[in-house]
Order: sequence, then C-alpha cells, then structure tokens
Amino acid sequence: MSLLEHTIRSIAPADAAARSRARRRLEQLTMPHWALGRVMDLAEDLAGMTGLVPPPVSRKTVVTMAGDHGVVSSGVSLYPPEVTVQMVRNFVRGGAAINVLARLAGARVVVVDMGVAGDLGELAREGLVISRRVAPGTRDISRGPAMDREQAVRCLEEGIGIARELAGGTDVFATGDMGIGNTTPSSALVSVFSGVDAAVATGRGTGIDDTQFARKVGIVRQALSVNRPDPEDPVGVLASVGGFEIGGIAGLILGAAALRKPVLVDGFISTAGALVAAALAPVAAQYMIASHRSMEQGHRVALEALGKRPLLDLDLRLGEGTGAALAMNLVEAAVRILTEMATFEEAAVSRSVS
Amino acid sequence: MSLLEHTIRSIAPADAAARSRARRRLEQLTMPHWALGRVMDLAEDLAGMTGLVPPPVSRKTVVTMAGDHGVVSSGVSLYPPEVTVQMVRNFVRGGAAINVLARLAGARVVVVDMGVAGDLGELAREGLVISRRVAPGTRDISRGPAMDREQAVRCLEEGIGIARELAGGTDVFATGDMGIGNTTPSSALVSVFSGVDAAVATGRGTGIDDTQFARKVGIVRQALSVNRPDPEDPVGVLASVGGFEIGGIAGLILGAAALRKPVLVDGFISTAGALVAAALAPVAAQYMIASHRSMEQGHRVALEALGKRPLLDLDLRLGEGTGAALAMNLVEAAVRILTEMATFEEAAVSRSVS
Repeated sequence: MSLLEHTIRSIAPADAAARSRARRRLEQLTMPHWALGRVMDLAEDLAGMTGLVPPPVSRKTVVTMAGDHGVVSSGVSLYPPEVTVQMVRNFVRGGAAINVLARLAGARVVVVDMGVAGDLGELAREGLVISRRVAPGTRDISRGPAMDREQAVRCLEEGIGIARELAGGTDVFATGDMGIGNTTPSSALVSVFSGVDAAVATGRGTGIDDTQFARKVGIVRQALSVNRPDPEDPVGVLASVGGFEIGGIAGLILGAAALRKPVLVDGFISTAGALVAAALAPVAAQYMIASHRSMEQGHRVALEALGKRPLLDLDLRLGEGTGAALAMNLVEAAVRILTEMATFEEAAVSRSVS
Repeated sequence: MSLLEHTIRSIAPADAAARSRARRRLEQLTMPHWALGRVMDLAEDLAGMTGLVPPPVSRKTVVTMAGDHGVVSSGVSLYPPEVTVQMVRNFVRGGAAINVLARLAGARVVVVDMGVAGDLGELAREGLVISRRVAPGTRDISRGPAMDREQAVRCLEEGIGIARELAGGTDVFATGDMGIGNTTPSSALVSVFSGVDAAVATGRGTGIDDTQFARKVGIVRQALSVNRPDPEDPVGVLASVGGFEIGGIAGLILGAAALRKPVLVDGFISTAGALVAAALAPVAAQYMIASHRSMEQGHRVALEALGKRPLLDLDLRLGEGTGAALAMNLVEAAVRILTEMATFEEAAVSRSVS
C-alpha cells in the first residue's frame, strides 16, 4: 500500500469520549452555560482531535509551503514570480509577517520548498529550508495539466512526510503558503470541489483591478475547460489545476490527521489544499480548524464546501500562515479555559436556578 | 469645572500625523498592499490614539467593574444577586474566565466595587478590590430611576479617577463588568441611544427561555416608559435606566480617552457604557476598540450606534472583560507587525508592478 493510501486509511474519527470528558468539565466552570461560545467549542474539538483532556497544544508549528506556478506567464498576478524565492529568503531571515505573528504565538516556522522556480539550494544545505522540490514550478494550467499524476501523488506524500517528521515536536500544526500566482489554481480547485462558477471562486489575489480580474476569471475558466477535472478523482484534480505547495498542504493535513494532530488551516490557498485533503479523506476534516475568512472572494464558498465556520474575519489576504498564526491565541485560550478555570463547587458560586 | 466636565473637554481627536507615519511604515512592509487588513487598521488606529509610532501597548489592564441591580427583584436573571459578590471573590482568587484570559494576554485584572449588594469590605481592606461603592445596588428601573443624578455623576467620576490612578502603569485599558441582572439596564440604555425598540435591544442574558425573554422585554419597556429618558441628557439616561458599574465603565473610557490611552471595549454591558461615554463626548469613540460582537441580540445595534466594527465574533456572552482580553492578542499583533517586519527595501523583495 502506498504512503498516501496508508495515511488515508489510518485517519480515525475524533474521539467522542474525550469530547464528552472535555464538555463535562467545561459545563462545571464558573460562568453561564457555554458563555465562552466558540472558545469552548474549540476546547471540545481539540479534545476530540487529540483524544486527550486537556489536549496538548503548547508546541506549535507553522509549515509554510512554497511553490511556483506556470500560469503566471498568462499575467494573473501583480508580482513577478521571483518574489516567491525572495519571500522565502525573507522567511528565513525572520522579516516576514508570518515570522512576526508566529513569534507572538510562540510557534516555529518551517519553510518547505515544494517546487519554486528559483534556486534555494544554499538555504536547503544550511537547513534553513526543507527541500521537497517536485519540479521548478508547475506548468500553465490554462494550457494543460499543472503536473503529472505521479507528481501530484508525490506532493501529497511529501506533505505527509513533513507532518511525520515534525510530529515529534509539534502538538498543533498550521498550514501556510507562498507562491506568486497561487490564487489562480486555488480558485480552480475551489470551483471544482464546491461546484460554483469560476467567477464566484475567483478573487482579487494581491490586488488586481477589474480588467485583470475579468482576465483571471477567464484563465480559471479556460483551465477548467482544458483540463476537465473530475471531482471524484481528487489526485487528478490536483494534477490538472493544482500546485505543488497546495498538494503539500493537502498532504500535511492528511499526515497530521492520521497522527491525531489538530491543523489550523490558513486562508484561501490553504483551504484549497484542505478541500483536496477532505476529498481524499472526508474524516480528515475533523482535524481541521478554519482559522479565518480572508478577503479573497472564493474563500467563503471554499469554507462552506469544507463545512467550516472560521474563527477570525479580519480582511486578511496574505497567506504564509498568518491567519493561522493569529488563531493560535484562541487555541491556547480554549485549553487554558479548560484547565485553569475554577468550577462552581471550587469557587462556591451559586448555579443558575434553571 | 467638575472633573467630569474637565475630562470631557480635554479629550482631543486622534493624532492624524501619527496615523500617517504609521500608515507610511505599514505600506513599505513586505506584503501586498494592506494585506493584513484589520490588523493594519488597528495599528494605524493605535498610533492615532496614542500619538506615538510605534504605539506603546505592552502594559495592559482589564478593569472589571461590579455592581448590583434592583431590577433583579423583577425576575430578569437566572442567577441570584449574591452571585455578583461570589464572582468578585472568584476574580480575586484568579479562578474566573477573565483571570485565565488576562494571564494569557499578559494583562492584569483590577476589580472595582462600584456598588454591589453584598459586603466586599474585607477584600477592599486587603487591597484586592478597589472600593468605589456608590450604593449597595441600584433601585428597580421598572419602577423609577436606578439612581439619583448625583450618583450618576459620581459613577462617571469614579471611573475617570480609576483611569487616572491606573494610567501610570497602563498602556491599554480594557473594560469589563460583573453584575447579575445588568443586561436589563444595558438593553434599556441601548434602546435609548440607538433608538431601536426594547425587543431589538434586549437579549437572552445568561440564557433565559422564551417566556422569561418576553417578560424581560416587558420590563425594559416599562423602565423606559416609567423613566422617559432623554438621549440628549446622557447623565439623566444613566441615572434613570443605568447601573453603577455601567457608569463606571463609561467614566473609565472618558478618563482613558482624555489620557490618550486606547480602550478595548468588551461586550454588551461595556458597549452600553461606551454609548454613555460617546453621548457625553463623541470624540471619545476614537479611543474605543470594539473587541467583539457578543451573542446578546442587542449588541449588534449597540455597536452600530457606536459606529464600530468588532474585531472578534465568537458567540461570547460572558462579560467580565473576556472578549476584550481575547482581543489583546490582536492589539499586540498589530504593533509587532508595525515594528518587527522587514520593508521591501530591507528584504530586497520586488514590489508589485502596478
């Protein structure tokens, strides 16, 4: 059995008994019933994912996957493709938004080269970037498939491998992405898995204008008509209209779910990866936490397709894992509430009369 | 001139030059334009409030104001009034939700007795609670005014005094409340200041059922018809349908604004207090940060009346300052982004082509 098949089969549903234990404790705490709402839902979810009460969450890892996209040659982004590599260098030096927000959250950032167009060999040799290069960027999805089927499987299995390698030092994973042009394949993936039109699944990316937006929708539409991806074949969908970092994110989520580790899913690109993972293994969705809803138009339908309500809604549109890093504070809060609050009995507080 | 008048007159508009300096820096950071959305808005707002770039935010204080309400004798809450004092004891021992979330945020919690029905003298003598008792609970607003006009002014001035006393060790204030029954006066205040009907301004509080809800709406309506509060006379409104802790919160906000200190406004009760403050000094709203939208139905209209979009929306309905404490992470994130990220030039990252 392949690593991918093995991983998919080993993902178990969330632990109902652990959820119940967490809920019983939460219901005894000194506040009106479930008065911390979604923070308490999150505590219960984390117990179910990990099977533990309290769920361990202290060691947090943001995995930022980088890749380039052949479709940028069709003019879908405001930024030149060399920015992908420039930003990876920025991540390594600690100057990017994800570095700042991960430091605040007490999380480490692991950068993975899934297939950028430029050369990151030196950073890989110094151990500053994990190299899992599938190829130097995908092919242009508006003209044919992004990658071969074998490459799609490889992306997924590299992602699973990363989850396994990091699991020993990680309680909670967060996904992140870097790849100029990657909202375009993500829009195509969201269109396929949610069944909405390209115009609904596509957004403004890094800030294109109306003309550029119309052009981008046309390119997503063309990618779908040229490749005719079948949502019943998720690996085929990833191969035809995906990206290396998106496949890596999908694999990371599957690997984490198989190891009962919660995964904070970042924004639009990460959610596209999460849709690939959920299509391969629906139960994996039980290990996903939607960290935020981004400004990217298609993110709303993507989250609905995943069946997730996001924790934050802050008009972010950056990626890198930044929304996931911001949501880590809520994960920490959820567990602290579960573990540090007094019960009605301990605090001698009267319960409600009903 | 009274302390209240003096404070109101000394509130200056946010510093436009500091906002511009913050914006210029934010626009040079290595990300697409304004890609961290509301986190960046917050950084700019904090610069405007404090007049400083970067704005200082490290010393955070949650001020949780406690008071009791005569209207509980009309049966508006599921909890007996002695819970107010029991919960204050819980705050002092560190076992309540606000203690847990403030610890996570690196904030201190200051508990103020604005007028609880029970005896907190011992805790006050030990310095664990600040005593600013106006009276042992308000009168029943469904039968007449909650308090005398002099008492309303005193609540506000005590709140201003607390802001002044704590300002030396506080960069950012957060409001919080504890008072069994206090959603009822808050609903009345929201109805007066936003102009909506009692049925829209009233919610389920700690979790009442349909029958209890109908009864509560009736009580709010009765309080408004008995007292006929005039929105043009904010002190009169507070006296007729307010509460001691709500007046204290309004005063705290005014005092903080006069000192150019940002204030994270917690949920429904705190927003009712914020509406009193904004009615007295509209410019004070520039120092308020709406931390979250609570489950309490009337909070939506209250925030609209205040002209604020909340940072979080997590189905909270607890008060105490818990939503404000959760939002402190975003305040910290905003300032870290402003100060710790690399610029395009520093990181040698290409800018967008448009």
